[in-house]
This record gives sequence, structure tokens and C-alpha cells, in this order.
Amino acid sequence: MTSPQTPASARPLGVAAIGYAFMGQAHSHAWRTVANHFDVPAFEQKVLVGRHGEAVAAAAQKYGWSESATDWRAVLERDDIDIVDICAPGWLHAEIATAALAAGKHVLVEKPLANSLAESQKMVRAAQAARTAGVRSMVGFNYRRLPALALARQLIAEGRLGSIRQVRASYLQDWLVDGESPMTWRLRKETAGSGALGDIASHAVDQVQFLLGDTVTSVSGTLHTFVTERPGPGGPEAVTVDDAAWATLSLAGGAVASVDVSRVALGQKNALRLEVYGTTGSITFNLESPNELYFLDGTEPVELQGFRRILVTEPGHPYVSGWWPQGHVLGWEHSFTHQIRDFLLAVAGGTDPSPSFEEGLGVQRVLAAIEASAAAGGATTLVEPVPVAEPGGRAASPASASRPGSALVEAAETDSHSSIPSRS
Amino acid sequence: MTSPQTPASARPLGVAAIGYAFMGQAHSHAWRTVANHFDVPAFEQKVLVGRHGEAVAAAAQKYGWSESATDWRAVLERDDIDIVDICAPGWLHAEIATAALAAGKHVLVEKPLANSLAESQKMVRAAQAARTAGVRSMVGFNYRRLPALALARQLIAEGRLGSIRQVRASYLQDWLVDGESPMTWRLRKETAGSGALGDIASHAVDQVQFLLGDTVTSVSGTLHTFVTERPGPGGPEAVTVDDAAWATLSLAGGAVASVDVSRVALGQKNALRLEVYGTTGSITFNLESPNELYFLDGTEPVELQGFRRILVTEPGHPYVSGWWPQGHVLGWEHSFTHQIRDFLLAVAGGTDPSPSFEEGLGVQRVLAAIEASAAAGGATTLVEPVPVAEPGGRAASPASASRPGSALVEAAETDSHSSIPSRS
Amino acid sequence: MTSPQTPASARPLGVAAIGYAFMGQAHSHAWRTVANHFDVPAFEQKVLVGRHGEAVAAAAQKYGWSESATDWRAVLERDDIDIVDICAPGWLHAEIATAALAAGKHVLVEKPLANSLAESQKMVRAAQAARTAGVRSMVGFNYRRLPALALARQLIAEGRLGSIRQVRASYLQDWLVDGESPMTWRLRKETAGSGALGDIASHAVDQVQFLLGDTVTSVSGTLHTFVTERPGPGGPEAVTVDDAAWATLSLAGGAVASVDVSRVALGQKNALRLEVYGTTGSITFNLESPNELYFLDGTEPVELQGFRRILVTEPGHPYVSGWWPQGHVLGWEHSFTHQIRDFLLAVAGGTDPSPSFEEGLGVQRVLAAIEASAAAGGATTLVEPVPVAEPGGRAASPASASRPGSALVEAAETDSHSSIPSRS
Amino acid sequence: MTSPQTPASARPLGVAAIGYAFMGQAHSHAWRTVANHFDVPAFEQKVLVGRHGEAVAAAAQKYGWSESATDWRAVLERDDIDIVDICAPGWLHAEIATAALAAGKHVLVEKPLANSLAESQKMVRAAQAARTAGVRSMVGFNYRRLPALALARQLIAEGRLGSIRQVRASYLQDWLVDGESPMTWRLRKETAGSGALGDIASHAVDQVQFLLGDTVTSVSGTLHTFVTERPGPGGPEAVTVDDAAWATLSLAGGAVASVDVSRVALGQKNALRLEVYGTTGSITFNLESPNELYFLDGTEPVELQGFRRILVTEPGHPYVSGWWPQGHVLGWEHSFTHQIRDFLLAVAGGTDPSPSFEEGLGVQRVLAAIEASAAAGGATTLVEPVPVAEPGGRAASPASASRPGSALVEAAETDSHSSIPSRS
Repeated sequence: MTSPQTPASARPLGVAAIGYAFMGQAHSHAWRTVANHFDVPAFEQKVLVGRHGEAVAAAAQKYGWSESATDWRAVLERDDIDIVDICAPGWLHAEIATAALAAGKHVLVEKPLANSLAESQKMVRAAQAARTAGVRSMVGFNYRRLPALALARQLIAEGRLGSIRQVRASYLQDWLVDGESPMTWRLRKETAGSGALGDIASHAVDQVQFLLGDTVTSVSGTLHTFVTERPGPGGPEAVTVDDAAWATLSLAGGAVASVDVSRVALGQKNALRLEVYGTTGSITFNLESPNELYFLDGTEPVELQGFRRILVTEPGHPYVSGWWPQGHVLGWEHSFTHQIRDFLLAVAGGTDPSPSFEEGLGVQRVLAAIEASAAAGGATTLVEPVPVAEPGGRAASPASASRPGSALVEAAETDSHSSIPSRS
Repeated sequence: MTSPQTPASARPLGVAAIGYAFMGQAHSHAWRTVANHFDVPAFEQKVLVGRHGEAVAAAAQKYGWSESATDWRAVLERDDIDIVDICAPGWLHAEIATAALAAGKHVLVEKPLANSLAESQKMVRAAQAARTAGVRSMVGFNYRRLPALALARQLIAEGRLGSIRQVRASYLQDWLVDGESPMTWRLRKETAGSGALGDIASHAVDQVQFLLGDTVTSVSGTLHTFVTERPGPGGPEAVTVDDAAWATLSLAGGAVASVDVSRVALGQKNALRLEVYGTTGSITFNLESPNELYFLDGTEPVELQGFRRILVTEPGHPYVSGWWPQGHVLGWEHSFTHQIRDFLLAVAGGTDPSPSFEEGLGVQRVLAAIEASAAAGGATTLVEPVPVAEPGGRAASPASASRPGSALVEAAETDSHSSIPSRS
Repeated sequence: MTSPQTPASARPLGVAAIGYAFMGQAHSHAWRTVANHFDVPAFEQKVLVGRHGEAVAAAAQKYGWSESATDWRAVLERDDIDIVDICAPGWLHAEIATAALAAGKHVLVEKPLANSLAESQKMVRAAQAARTAGVRSMVGFNYRRLPALALARQLIAEGRLGSIRQVRASYLQDWLVDGESPMTWRLRKETAGSGALGDIASHAVDQVQFLLGDTVTSVSGTLHTFVTERPGPGGPEAVTVDDAAWATLSLAGGAVASVDVSRVALGQKNALRLEVYGTTGSITFNLESPNELYFLDGTEPVELQGFRRILVTEPGHPYVSGWWPQGHVLGWEHSFTHQIRDFLLAVAGGTDPSPSFEEGLGVQRVLAAIEASAAAGGATTLVEPVPVAEPGGRAASPASASRPGSALVEAAETDSHSSIPSRS
Repeated sequence: MTSPQTPASARPLGVAAIGYAFMGQAHSHAWRTVANHFDVPAFEQKVLVGRHGEAVAAAAQKYGWSESATDWRAVLERDDIDIVDICAPGWLHAEIATAALAAGKHVLVEKPLANSLAESQKMVRAAQAARTAGVRSMVGFNYRRLPALALARQLIAEGRLGSIRQVRASYLQDWLVDGESPMTWRLRKETAGSGALGDIASHAVDQVQFLLGDTVTSVSGTLHTFVTERPGPGGPEAVTVDDAAWATLSLAGGAVASVDVSRVALGQKNALRLEVYGTTGSITFNLESPNELYFLDGTEPVELQGFRRILVTEPGHPYVSGWWPQGHVLGWEHSFTHQIRDFLLAVAGGTDPSPSFEEGLGVQRVLAAIEASAAAGGATTLVEPVPVAEPGGRAASPASASRPGSALVEAAETDSHSSIPSRS
């Protein structure tokens, strides 16, 4: 195990990113712009890594990286690289992340943590070992850093909703609605692991645990494939993953959440919708209108109660002070910029960022339980708890695993918008 | 001048309605159902009056009236008729209403008060004279009795919005969007008086004065006819009324209101939209969703401010306790039921209902000023004040003319929902 | 078995209603107004029946019934009664309905059909027997008669949505959100049968089957009680019914529906929300805005696709021609008026109205399966099929049981709005 | 007059930006990211210019400029600068822009074109002269480049709305709602020129002309200052600009538009709302939800008509192909990125970008007419036409002045989304 190399104070942090497809582009955009908007430690976009030399060179040029490379192992050996941002496909996460951590590089890895539980567990062990040496790791559930959802978390953490009873989380898309759209690797179990479940239910499950600061303990689930066969390269081919999933989740604190995801919900483009119902307040959100949070204050006289549309663009809202004046809305990509900002602050500040690999594994375990429940006809299935590091591991933080939102709330505090002022 | 005849305590009030077209049907429906939902003095649907004997007899039968008649003058002479509800076309309002008041009948007249200012003034004089004898009169701006708008008035009267600065009032419809739809009496100045201005801007102007409890003092206006010619019985015929109107209104208390109405706003079906902006709160409303009032409390921390959707169906909301449990919404027609309820309570209680004929004339004067301003190319035009009854006229109430909402607020108080409880 | 007595042509149909609480008031309102708006066979509001003589007499007077009575059995013996409208509590449905049918009275019964499956089955047998004698029966799933949902059914039946894949049905209320609100009979299993499941999931399940014209064949369900103890007359008392329920339903035609109901969803007042996703179109609806149907036409170019808000108030929309011009919205209660209208037309026309008792039993069977699945930890549970009358039973109509919407579509056809015109 | 210096093919275009406040930051962000998302000619962020050496150096470092400078005149003399982006305050626009054009630099200037008509006219003359030498100029009405509004323009240009009758344009903000917020240079006529009129009505007026491809010919206007005195450095000071404005605009093609802007509309943060009503279609938009365009197709059967919410995030929508997959929304700032993209393409392609300085002057003239009308009590006031270059000026393009949207539509065409596919 190598310790993190050059301290941030001595020279800019060197960053390598691996992958330049959709997620690679989104992460690159964030690295490219974060310092224009936030006070972050100095860093350099050193190298973009990909499999195809020419293509990755063009991408590096386009996205603002100084160089490109095709051998990620070689990059991990470089002394001028302090941070590795893994945007490669899920099946490569474990191998790259464990090697990078072993090399003493701080690691940010796109969600899902990995395609299998075994790999995820291996990654958690690697992260726990690295953490004792001050090496940081984080999984990229970027929606936690949308101002509206960060505000939602704050309101819940401050008790504005009272005790949470119910969550309704759904994530609806429609890009597979056409039964004639062709077979891809995303629709084969051996390459994709699962379908809508792993791809989008993962976000929904993470939000449930993040918003409530709580942990799912058991589930009942159903999976379904509406289009069972699609045109493949050699004729019709069976689709072997789900294109929709439903589950009911029980949380340790007593709340119940429903999760409902689909890739064939015609007309829904990217509708991660969240509804949280507490004893004294409620919240709703839709990712298609990401600057809006709807909040109902149940302590008002009932004749004045109603869901209010908060346009989350005030300077006092999470992350917004880095951007534009009130009413000038942000987009989807800004969640990645905020993620990089918090990751850099954690690396420089010597703290463990959230969501940790443990939290990423926690989501994977819930998804695995849903899959197992579905296979058993919906029977209630327990979620295996996430392992906590041994006592010896000083930096191991059971708290951060059990309170997924804590790091953000703390980060937010340093950002001087720790809490919404009370009514005067 | 005859005094109102039999006291309400002795026998049920006898009601005659004149007119059985659209408005006649709406009023009949209200008479038919009001006692099923509200505690009102006993009354009987005695007679429906119309020009065509057979048709009015069928309508009387259908809408629940005991008899029908074709001669309204004869009906006014009947001792068993205490109340006359005038739903006849506007050009008949003045003649019937003054005769009915002179005969000691309480009068409810559909808006607009009359087609001309001269007629309206005559009606006001008749109402003022009758009032001294305890005869009641009211003009039917029914939207004041929608629970959501009655609630809006309460919130403003209670100071929840602070001092009002701006109102945006528009009323958009689209039933004349087709340039080939034929000529009708509504599109000829000699029969209709005006177009969108008199028909729908009247509601918008009444709401501005009602919600603010204030009076328009000057205006700048524009009228326009988009479809200048339509198929008539003998070939193309010129449209001689406006199909859209715009105006800026100055109110005595310092607020400025914009009014914007159209019959060719394709896709808007019945969109009376109101936005009221005060120093500490704001309100918006749309008649197409009449159970919803949007309210923003500007005294909250700015990070939590937002327009909240109040579903105005709580028992504590104006008029709602007569109906269904929370969340079971009312429709357009209920405004007429509430209007009848308040009118009956005023008649039985010996108080003057609002909106009075003076208030109806007040709206007409604003419309006349808009028309005059438009004719003068938009030049600012003063609104002539509404005459107040002579000092001798005991019941004359300048206050009710200048505070259009007062009667409703008082009526509401008797209904045990005088005010929204304060925050505890 | 008595045949229906006097033919409708001979004298007005005599109607008796049993019950005068919330539902009794809603039905009375519908009887009181239906003939003012629709061409229906002549009828008379003869008698209102209730347990408490004085109270039912007052209610009869208020709601427009000629007389009142306390003994429903005596009323069933009257020759002048042709129709019995049962608004009594669920535990009385079976006894009254079977007796009324045996007496040759046409029966409309509020949903749910009965509190137990055994009673429901008995009622179905009674209805099947009566049907052979021309005696009609119907269960009151009134939301089928909201214009927006009737339009939704039309669009689906006409194939506008293609093949339906997914339905999301939820019904959220909040009247039990306060943990201190007292114990009532509705919260005890012995009196209420179930909680949110029977009360509001029944509507959601009926809509799923109605809109798709399909039948649920198996379910996976979860029930939960968030507030397990409430103040009772003699101290804290255990709540023995669910206050929220979740289920995944498989339909015979291959669609999957999720159902999600709650009485503690703070801020949701009466939110029956429906989302139907097909291969070429989608629909959404919310009962809190019942005049609006959202429709997405997936055959448009994707750049122009979007959920359009149809304000269902055009004369060509189901039921609307009986009411007001476009844009003048209807309320919750109108669904009952339309229900009475269709019931009267069926009675007079000699056809069987829908939803039949079989359809009511069908909903009960689905709810029973959800309850059984929940008790088994969510395990997939088959829904027992609804029995169809023997071949001898001439009027028995398996078709109407399997195609729940057919009768309405036919009724709608007679109403001259059988189908939305195609694009020209 | 100098010709543009080095051809774009020889070396990257050198860019200088002047100003680093709010608009400077927004433009810098756009320069920083445009090449990561769009194929644009090579360029370099050479130098950022500001008055305060230290501050501008920090800003240059933060926003990605290679150097900083304090003397813009010296920068104009540099041979390596091809493009000058003017984000300095309005009173400096004319001086810098005319000097830059004279030096052969392509100029992009923030809106408004200038603070006075005299300056604006001077700038137009300079632009017309420079245009003959191939030097390009553009004014930054960035909202034209929001995908939703670019799509709106396309739909209107393609005739989807038929002939436009009415536009309702409003721009509501609330940052001056607090009467105690202090005096600033923006509230003094001598420094700001005007208040809400110049600042936000300018956007509304530009959109009216852009969307319709038409020109305002006369106006009737009203200005108002609600808070007439604010705390100044030496005690209370008079506010000498408007904080709200209203106007009715007549367009050459026969349409009428209303414009309504305010800085005290409590709860409205950045609500540029547009409603366009045509004979066969309508459109609405709100800048607070900038990814959504609402479109009503009036050629559908009326029973199916409704405003559809188009989420303008499809690859086929204007500008979107440079960004993320469908449903991943963009923010306010992207309009600037698209503006830079189109400006660069015009510079490299040798075409004149739109909006031209003539179009900027056109907006100023409308605002001046509103001010004059308001001063005359609302009297109808003609808008002075914008001068067109002399015949000798080869590149002078009266067409682009009279058809404000044409350049964008053409630019869009090169982007392979020239038009929305017709229905098949």
C-alpha cells in the first residue's frame, strides 16, 4: 500500500481519467469547469486514458486533457498522477480501482460500483485498506449533488419533515420503447449484469438511503422484460435483462419505500421522481425539472398547506453560490461539477468523501436482494449488511456507511449554507 | 316604491327567474341544489319566465320550476314572488330590474349590470331607492364565490400579501379562433355593446377591484379585432366589436393592474388568470383549475419560498363545509350555488349583498374608460366615480362600494371560517 | 324471483335510496340533478331510508326525497319502487341487495360490492339470477364516469396507445397522517374488513381493469400500518387494518400494473393518479385535477412529442354535452350524476349496466389476493377467476365481465361521442 | 477600416474579452466549453481585459484566459486578436465596439446594444461599414439560442402556428421587492438609462420580433416606479428609473403583442414567459423551466387538443446534439455557449451572424418608443425604422434586419436539424 504521494500544497494534483464515452465526457466537462466556479485545490487535467489511441487522443484534445494514453496500468505508475477518475465500463471498475488504490491514488469511480457483488466487496476491502493510509475513494452517485436534492437532504436531516414514513421513488425512461430497436450489450445479462435495475434503480435506491440517512433491510421485488426478443446481428436474439422493475423496501428506521423503474415508459425521458412523506412535511422532485423542489410544511394551518415550488437557485442553496444569480437555472451536468468539487475538497482536506465504496456496495446489495426476491416470486428477502472495517482500521467509518448523507451535510456546512434560517 | 312583501319567516320566499339559456340554466341549477348543501331560508322555485311559451315550459319542467310564464310584467305583480333572478340578455336588464325593484322584489341580475352606462346608472338609482325600503339587489359576478378566490380575498384582506403593488389579470378563450365561424349578435356593436371587453374583461376588472378592495381610477387601453369580417346571413359582414383588449389600470391605493383578454387565444378555453404581487406575499389563480390557489409567503426565508398549491377543498375554506370532504373538488357551477346562498342569507338577514349595483356600475365605468382610451390611441383616461346615494338614503352604503369585498368577508365570518388560523 | 314491475313507459320509475351519510348525500345530489342535464327516463325520488327516523326525515327533506322510512324491508315490498340505490355501509350490502333483486328491484350498490368475498359471491349469484328476469344491477365505481377517465378508456379501446405495457396506479390521501387522531370503526378489521386496501386500492384496481379492458391474474403485495396504536374510547387501541398498501399486478393481456395507496401521504388529499404506458401512446391523470387528461401520441415525430393537457370539457367529450360550454369545468360529484344517468338508461333500455356485480367481485378478488400475498411475505398469488353464469342464464354476459369497459363505450356511443375523429 | 487579419485557416482565432463581472463570467464559461461540445473553428482564449489589474488577473486565471490586461485600446492593436467580446457596462459599448470594428476585429457585444439611441446608431453605422470588409458583428440576445426558443422559432417559421395573431410576453423578477434594499447605479437614470424596461423588456421585445420574424411598428406604454425612494449613501435618494413597465405593441404583419415586465413581482425569479397564439397553433414558454416548450396543434380534433410539454432535449432539437442524451437537461448558461458557437461559425464561414447590430438597434427603438409613449400618458407612438446600409455596402442585409430569425434558422440547418419531420 502506497501513501498518497505529493501533498496537495506542494504542486497541483495530477488527474487521470479513464474512459471517454458518455460518462467520460460528463466527468471531463466537470474537471474542465469546476475551478472556474468553486475554490478548489489546484489540479491539472493530465491524461485521458482509453483503448483506441487515435480516438482517445482526439477526445483528450477536445475535452481539455494535456495528454492521452492507452495503458491505464502505466498511468497508475506515474508519480505525477494523484487522482484516478474511472469512467470505464462497469466490468473494469474493480480491477482498475483496486490497482489505483494500491498505487496510492485517490479514486473516483462512476456508479455502479461494480457489476458483481464479489467485485464490489473486493473494492470495499481495497478502499478500507487505502483509507488507513489516507487514500480517498468515492462512488459517483452524482444526483446527490443536485442543489434541489442536496436541499431535500438538508430539510430532512434538520427534521423539517418529522419522521419519514413513506418514500415513492421511480425512474422512468423510454429509450427502449421501440420493440424493433436492436440488441446491444446492455440487453445481455453477461455483459450488463442487469437492465433497468442496475442502471437506474441504483440511483433510486441510493436516493432513498441518502435522503433518509437510513438503510434498506429487506425487500420484495418483481422484474419484467416486456420486449423479450430484439433484432440481433444474427437474427432475433433473446433479451436477458429486465426492462422494468418494481420493489417495496423496508428501512431500518421503519420507513417503507417503493421503487419503480422502466425503460419503456413512453414519454418519460429521464424522470427520476422522488416523493418523501413524513409526519410533519413532504417533498417531491422530478429530475426532468431538476431546479425545482416541492415542499409541503405540515405544521402550517391546513387551509394554507400546499406543495410549494422552490426554485433552487438562491445563493443560500447548496452549491448555487458558485454559479449565477437567482432564477438562472442549472442543468444536469452541474451535478458532476459539484461532485468533483466535493471530491477535491475531501482529498485536500484529508477527509473521506461520501458516497463511499461501502455506500456503493450498500446499493448493490439492495439490488441483489431485489433480484433474488423477484426470482423467488416476490418473497421478502433480507439485504445483507455492508461489512465495516476492522477496529484497527482507524479511518474506517461505520457512521458514514449508516448515515449516507453525513459527508454532504458537512461539506455543505463548510460552504456556509449549513441550514435554512428558521422563521423569524 | 313597495316594501318587500311577506317576511321570510311567514312563508317560503317565492322565486321567479327570467331567462333559460346558458345563464338561466346555471342559475336554475343553483336554485335547485343550494338548500341541499347550505342552511338557507326556505324558498320555492315558483316560476321560470321566457319569451317562447313551449320552450320555457319545457325548461321549467327540466330545471325544477313549478310553473312557467311568458310575461315578466305579470309575474312582477304576483304577491307570491319575493325574488326576481334576471338571466335575460343584457339589453333587458335595466327595464326588468327597475320594474322589479319598484315592485318591491329583491333582485339578482346577471353581469354585466347593463349594456350601457345610462342604463346602469338608472339601475343604481333604482337600487338605492329600493334599499331605503329594505329591498335588496345584487349583480352576479359569480367568480367572487369560488372558494379559491374567496380565500384569496381573505388572505389579502388579512394583510398576508402586505401592500399590493401589481396585479396581472387576463381572461383568455378561443371560441372565435376560426375566422370562418359565422357572424352572431355577439359580434355586432349594436346588440352586444362590446366584445371581449364587456364579456370577459368585466370579470377580470371585477376581480381586480374585489381582491384588492380598491377602485380603479384611470386606465390606458387598446382594443383590437383580429377577424374583421365573418360570414353573415347575406354574405360577408363586418365584425364591429373587439375580439381582444389590453389595458393598464391605476388603482386608488397605488397598485397597477394589467388586463389582457381575448377570444382568439387558441388553446385557452376559459383561462381567467390572476396574479397578485404584494410586498410580503403573492397569489396566482387560473379558472381552468378553479380549486387551486397558489400562494407565496414572502416572510419565509428566501431558500424556502415558493408558490404553494393550496387545494381549496378543506372544510375551513370558504363555502366548502357545505360540500364534500377534503380533496373532492368542486366545479364551475358551484360559484352560482354560493352566490344564491349569500343572496338568500342577505335577503333573510336584512343586509345588502355584495356586489351591489354600484359595484356593477363601477366595473362598467372602468370598461367605458378603457374603450374611450382605446379610441384616443391609448391615452390615459380617468374613470368616472360611482355615485353614492344621498345622505337621506339610510341604507346607502358608500363603504360597500369602496370596499367591494367587505360583504363577502362578513358573510364568510358567519360561516365560521372568518380567518385562517395563525401559525402557532 | 319477481320480474321488474311496471314498465318504465307506464309511469315514472320509483326510486328508493338507503343511506344518507357521505355517499347517500352524493347519490341524492345526483338523483336531484340528473334530469336537469340529461335525457333520462322519468323517475321520482320516492323514499330515503335510514336507521334514525328523525335524522332520515330531515335528510329526505334536505336532499329532495318525497318521504323517508326506517325499514328497508318494508320499502322493498312497495309496488311503486322500481329502483333501490344502496348507500348503506358495506356490511349491509349483501343482505339488502339480494333481497332487493329477489323482489325484482333494479339495484345500484356503492362500492365495494361487499366486505367479504362470500357475500360478494352471493350477490353475484343473485344478480345473475335476476338478470335472466330482466332485473338490472350495477356497482358504483363512479370514477369510470368522470369525463377524463371515460375519454382515457375510449382512447385505449380505439388503440391510440397501441398495446399497453405498464400501468402505474396510486391513490394517496393524508387524513390519517396525525398519529393522535382517534380510533374509529374504519381502523378495526372486524368492522372495516381492511384499510386503505379496500377503501381506495379498490378504485385503483377497478381503473386498471376498466382502462385496459383486461383482468388481473396474479399479484404480489405488501401491507403496512404506520400508526399501530391510536387513542380509543378506553385508552390506546391497536389499529388492525393497513394504512398503506403496495402491489404489482399481472394482467391476462401481458401488462404489468403497480398499485400504491396510502392514507398518510401528507399533502395528498385525494390523489388517484393513473399512468398508462403503451407501445404508441401514454396517458396520465390525477383525480385532484379531474378535468384534465394528459395524453402523449408516440406516433408523432419525437421532436414534437410531449404530454398534452386535454381539458376534458368539450361538447364532444363523454358526458360533457349535458353541461356547460368548453372550459367550464366539472367537479367530483358529477361522476355520480353520470353514473345515475347510465344506470337509468340501461334500466329503461333493457341492457345490463357496467360495472356489473361480477366486475365488483373481480375487484374484490384482486384485493383478497393482495392481502393473501402480503400475508405470505409478498409471494406471487393467483387471483381466483370470477364465476360466469350458466349457459341457461340467457342474459349472463361473460363478455361484460372480461371487458369491463364495453358497456360504457356502448353507452358513450349512444351519446354521439363514440369516437374521437381521426386526423384528416 | 482594417480587414479581418489572419484567415482562420492559418492559426487559431485569438479572442479577447472585456469585462469579468456577471456577464463576463457567463461568456468566459461559454468560451471555455464550446469546443468540448461543438465543432467550431480553432480559437484561443488570449486575454481578459478589466479595469483593476489584480482582480482581472485573478479572473483571467480562474476563467481560463492566457493573460489579462487593463488597457482595451492596446489590446485592439494586437495582431493576434481577431475577436473582441464586449461584456463591459452598457455605457462603454459604443466606444469599444466602434474602435474594435475599425481595427478589423469581429465583435460580439452584450445586450443592450448601448445605453442611448445615438450610440446605438453609431454602432450600427460602424457595423455596416465593417461588414463591407468582412468584419462580423453581433449583439448578445442569448435567449434566442436556448433550444426551446430556437425550436419555437422553427415551428413558427415552418407555419405550424399558422398566422400569428397575439403574443403575450412578460419578464418578471423580484430582486427589488424589498423597499429597503439600497440605492445602486442601476436605479439612477443617468447611469442605467432605464430600469426594468432596458434590462428585461429588451429580452421580451427581442423575442417578440425574433419568434415572429416581424417588426414592431407602434406602441402604447406605461412605466411605473413602485419604490420611489431608497436608502442611498447620504440618506434617502429618489429612484429615477422604472421598476415595472407595460406595453402593447403592433407588428408590421398585423399581430399584437403585450409586454409586461417587473422587478418587484414577488416570487418570480427569472420568469421570461412567452405565449404565442396563431390561427392553427400556439406556444408557451417560461425561462424558469427553459428545457420545456409547450405546443398546441390546432389542426388536431378539438377533443384531443392540448398544450403538450415538449422536453427539448432530443438529439434532433436545436443545439442538443452537442450535449447529452435525451432527458438530460441543459441550464441557463448553455444559451451563451450556443451563441459563441454560432458566432464562431459565422466568422469562420464568412456570413453575418444574427442578431445584428441593426436588430439590437431595432429593440432599442421599440424601448424608446415605449418610453416616449409612457411620457405621453400612453398615447400610441410610432417606432422609428432601423436604417439599412447604403446600396454600395455589398454585405448589407436588409433581410436580416427584417427577418430576425433567419440566420439562426440557417445555422440550424447546417446542424442537420433543419426541420421537424412531418407526420408520416
